[in-house]
Amino acid sequence: MTRLDLFIDRMVSQRACLDHAIAETALIDGPVFELGLGNGRTYHHLRERIGDARPIYVFERAIASHPESTPPDERVILGDVTETLPATLQRFGPVASLIHADLGGHNAQKNDIFARKVSPLIEPLLAEGGMMVSSDRMYFDTLTEMPLPGGAVQGRCFIYRR
Amino acid sequence: MTRLDLFIDRMVSQRACLDHAIAETALIDGPVFELGLGNGRTYHHLRERIGDARPIYVFERAIASHPESTPPDERVILGDVTETLPATLQRFGPVASLIHADLGGHNAQKNDIFARKVSPLIEPLLAEGGMMVSSDRMYFDTLTEMPLPGGAVQGRCFIYRR
Repeated sequence: MTRLDLFIDRMVSQRACLDHAIAETALIDGPVFELGLGNGRTYHHLRERIGDARPIYVFERAIASHPESTPPDERVILGDVTETLPATLQRFGPVASLIHADLGGHNAQKNDIFARKVSPLIEPLLAEGGMMVSSDRMYFDTLTEMPLPGGAVQGRCFIYRR
Repeated sequence: MTRLDLFIDRMVSQRACLDHAIAETALIDGPVFELGLGNGRTYHHLRERIGDARPIYVFERAIASHPESTPPDERVILGDVTETLPATLQRFGPVASLIHADLGGHNAQKNDIFARKVSPLIEPLLAEGGMMVSSDRMYFDTLTEMPLPGGAVQGRCFIYRR
């Protein structure tokens, strides 16, 4: 399996899991949190699929996305997620309908360390019935890992639900 | 269609076209030229699929790829392709079995201007029967645009043959 194969599987799985989670959480009013904007392709996908039904907040250190995928200023939460996630819990409470994270870099070991670090910061943000979609395995105490939808490849994406 | 959808189509089409072109040019001994390395996922794919059957040269301004996708120094041709492509024609002659280019950035108009600029520099490098795979439409006088293989999406990838 080549790195291109792996990457395609990851992107295809991410889309399948997001589409599934968007549908599954459609009846929850709470906001959507996108952790990491990057180029903004996934944000663009969330925005097109969710429309105005729920606000989408983007957590990022510095915005460097494609012009068509740049969130409005009032929906950007700038800073290090280890600080902005706890601050967001204070601000909103446990109301998120959907949280998506593609925080991973190239180094699987570093990704795992980071996933362990941010899992307890993400976990309290989700509303009852809310879902979390991640490209890395997360470490939650109170969320349930869900089966992946059709089209997603095992191990390339993870879904959790409160 | 979202930017994530477009991106997935582009990656899937790139892989389908490359696999097709690798097979179609397998009997030609000449080198493979990868124009633009980036993260190195496509280079990794070419290397895994072609093995030692043909040397793969990478054209790039500066190497910044994933450690698993970094070509050996003697297979890197550093510099601006408007200079390194003519120099490569002098060095090797018209011997390339396969040339792949994913030069495009976010701006479709800029990509098209660049494609027009580099097409006449790429064209003379191909051996008889050699193929060129590109994520952008190219402008060749003597090459034939080929039908895409199954799995590729029309307009997301292009194949040309001498």
